[in-house]
Amino acid sequence: MSTTGTKIRELIVTPIAFRDPPLLNSNGVHEPLALRCVLQLRLEDGTVGLGESPGGAVRLERLDAAAKAVVGLDVFDTTAVTAAVDAVLLPTVPSSHERGWTTSAVEVACLDAQGKLLGRPVSDLLGGRVRDSVPFAGYLFYKWGEHPALDGREAVGDDWGEALDPAGIVAQARLMRERYGFRSFKLKGGVFPPDEEIAAIRALSEAFPGQPLRLDPNTAWTVETSRYVARELDGFLEYLEDPTATIAGMAEVAKDSPLPLATNMCVIAWEHLRPAVEQNAVQVLLTDHHYWGGLRRTRELAAVCEAFGIALSMHSNSHLGISLAAMTHVAAAIPHLDHSCDTHYPWNLADDIVRPGVFELRDGEVKVPTGPGLGVELDHEALDRLHRVYLESGMRGRDDTGYMRRVEPDYELRLPRW
Amino acid sequence: MSTTGTKIRELIVTPIAFRDPPLLNSNGVHEPLALRCVLQLRLEDGTVGLGESPGGAVRLERLDAAAKAVVGLDVFDTTAVTAAVDAVLLPTVPSSHERGWTTSAVEVACLDAQGKLLGRPVSDLLGGRVRDSVPFAGYLFYKWGEHPALDGREAVGDDWGEALDPAGIVAQARLMRERYGFRSFKLKGGVFPPDEEIAAIRALSEAFPGQPLRLDPNTAWTVETSRYVARELDGFLEYLEDPTATIAGMAEVAKDSPLPLATNMCVIAWEHLRPAVEQNAVQVLLTDHHYWGGLRRTRELAAVCEAFGIALSMHSNSHLGISLAAMTHVAAAIPHLDHSCDTHYPWNLADDIVRPGVFELRDGEVKVPTGPGLGVELDHEALDRLHRVYLESGMRGRDDTGYMRRVEPDYELRLPRW
Repeated sequence: MSTTGTKIRELIVTPIAFRDPPLLNSNGVHEPLALRCVLQLRLEDGTVGLGESPGGAVRLERLDAAAKAVVGLDVFDTTAVTAAVDAVLLPTVPSSHERGWTTSAVEVACLDAQGKLLGRPVSDLLGGRVRDSVPFAGYLFYKWGEHPALDGREAVGDDWGEALDPAGIVAQARLMRERYGFRSFKLKGGVFPPDEEIAAIRALSEAFPGQPLRLDPNTAWTVETSRYVARELDGFLEYLEDPTATIAGMAEVAKDSPLPLATNMCVIAWEHLRPAVEQNAVQVLLTDHHYWGGLRRTRELAAVCEAFGIALSMHSNSHLGISLAAMTHVAAAIPHLDHSCDTHYPWNLADDIVRPGVFELRDGEVKVPTGPGLGVELDHEALDRLHRVYLESGMRGRDDTGYMRRVEPDYELRLPRW
Repeated sequence: MSTTGTKIRELIVTPIAFRDPPLLNSNGVHEPLALRCVLQLRLEDGTVGLGESPGGAVRLERLDAAAKAVVGLDVFDTTAVTAAVDAVLLPTVPSSHERGWTTSAVEVACLDAQGKLLGRPVSDLLGGRVRDSVPFAGYLFYKWGEHPALDGREAVGDDWGEALDPAGIVAQARLMRERYGFRSFKLKGGVFPPDEEIAAIRALSEAFPGQPLRLDPNTAWTVETSRYVARELDGFLEYLEDPTATIAGMAEVAKDSPLPLATNMCVIAWEHLRPAVEQNAVQVLLTDHHYWGGLRRTRELAAVCEAFGIALSMHSNSHLGISLAAMTHVAAAIPHLDHSCDTHYPWNLADDIVRPGVFELRDGEVKVPTGPGLGVELDHEALDRLHRVYLESGMRGRDDTGYMRRVEPDYELRLPRW
């Protein structure tokens, strides 16, 4: 193959908004719409590589800057392409973690285009599949039964119903299992006082004996509360995720926690690895290709974790099918994936922007797409529709706290809360 | 591209022997012949991927076991292919480092075959080139003027001449520079008392002001001697390589060494990284794809080094053109290659088994091959010839010490010697 045509002609970034249920967390509640950006990286020969990134005005602006930086570069030079994006962001975005969100989305689009050019699935570009399907955890949330009526908009319900106590969480888990066959569950906590969430985990454990469970309060707790919960849930959880903030805080908890601690909040950039290892702050890392630099960098991160005895799991934000494909390819290529991956996909799949038929969540697993590149095809009608929803929404960022306060005016964001 | 034809049909392993000058080191002296194995990984569609590994009966036996383990696997599943090789060796080869030599050679052959199938250079499969040529260091050795007459064989000289003192080393460096333009030099030490080697480095520094220099005594020294040399050469070396043995020993030296310490001897497997970091034993890692698991794993190792603030250089044993190609591709793909790479290539290129024309050492650099795969072509006549040399030699392993004792019967291997 000659290199003719493998240069990047343009990167088209399309902001979209898609429906999201009222999922509760330590910051408030998910708004009725979630934002995302879809990347189409078009090469000179017409090949298009897809990427997906969190949305919002700030991320959109950075992606637009990236789009200018990559034109004319060769799509096979992914290291150089992401370095060019990083360089253009550096003057205004000092955080390497923040720059990572942008470079990562571009890298995925490059790999999708490469795979399409070469006729190989992206997993092959990462060393090949070591598993044909990837296990995901059922991602449980405390949630309202509906988005309340606001601003003349009617209330919007969903077919998951309300979950505000242990019984509601167990019912949601049963529905998750019935629909998708999940064999492990994660509960997003940090919403109710710790004893209520401890009770929910114990109820799950009783309802699903032997199934791996984990709890993630998103740093809602002090070190002392984290220690208490860890003791109370010893024997019930495979790991406790981000009970408290910062590497130092996690290290304090880890000192006498009977449970492994996991994070996707205090170790989120390459420069955090050394202090985390030195302080033995985390025993499980939830990787996320969306900010660690892309799929190749995620394999590299997995190697770091392997070398330093840190187990590997995978983080998820609200996402659609391009991200699911990318997550699945890289998870399929990582030899020692120690836990099932997180995914919000069941909460958002009704508004997907990839053509249906590729993904089926069965037995809690997703088969690795075997078509060229990511193996998914963009649904242009859905993209156009969700782009219009974005434009009409006027939303330019995520604000779980602000939305909560519109419904519960006394709500205050406090971290740690307990 | 369909996957038809991408399965591995056979792995042909050919042991060869090639001429090597009488280079001195802390173990003795290089024998007149060095051993190597050439891998030809043939796919069902006839595509052949090349690999190169150190030779000798033990490595040959392991490669033959690997050859049986990989038949029928898909060449794109490199992680699974190397895992299969690792698994077949595990019962008899407990050292992961030792298994790494075999898995690595197979991985390189897989990537060469992939690149040929896809029409892309191997560097593209590693994220693309971040440099078009790779800097190498002139690898200086104390050496005899000729292999002495032995066993009815006549003495065998070479066009490098003798180098047994500072003046000889400087003359060799001048010749290296004249022939290949090297702009940095490494001296293999551990041969003469430390003060003589200190004098050689100072002479080099005077002859080549401002050029990076390094010294590698291959663990010939005690901790105390290492500290002494580090103090004496402060300001003269960019790093001091493996002055003493073990991670703990290096850590002792590092505590008050004004020079960064480098290693390719005490950190040679993934499980060594954590203790090395915890003890701050090394500041520079000399990576070597021949035992770290191949080219993708070398990129992963580079990421570990980046995350933990360890600088990166590259190690070399006596090798031929397939290895040079592999070293060059991976070095081209690693963003933060902090030092020029080592290579023995100038000492052995007369017997190369790749067709000439690809490599030119100019200005101390090698241009990254841009052809498909590794970008080199096997010279079958040379391979056959060197295989016959191997068969006729009767050599089945490397024995620098034994050879030295045949010439100097009183020679004793002692590490540390000083």
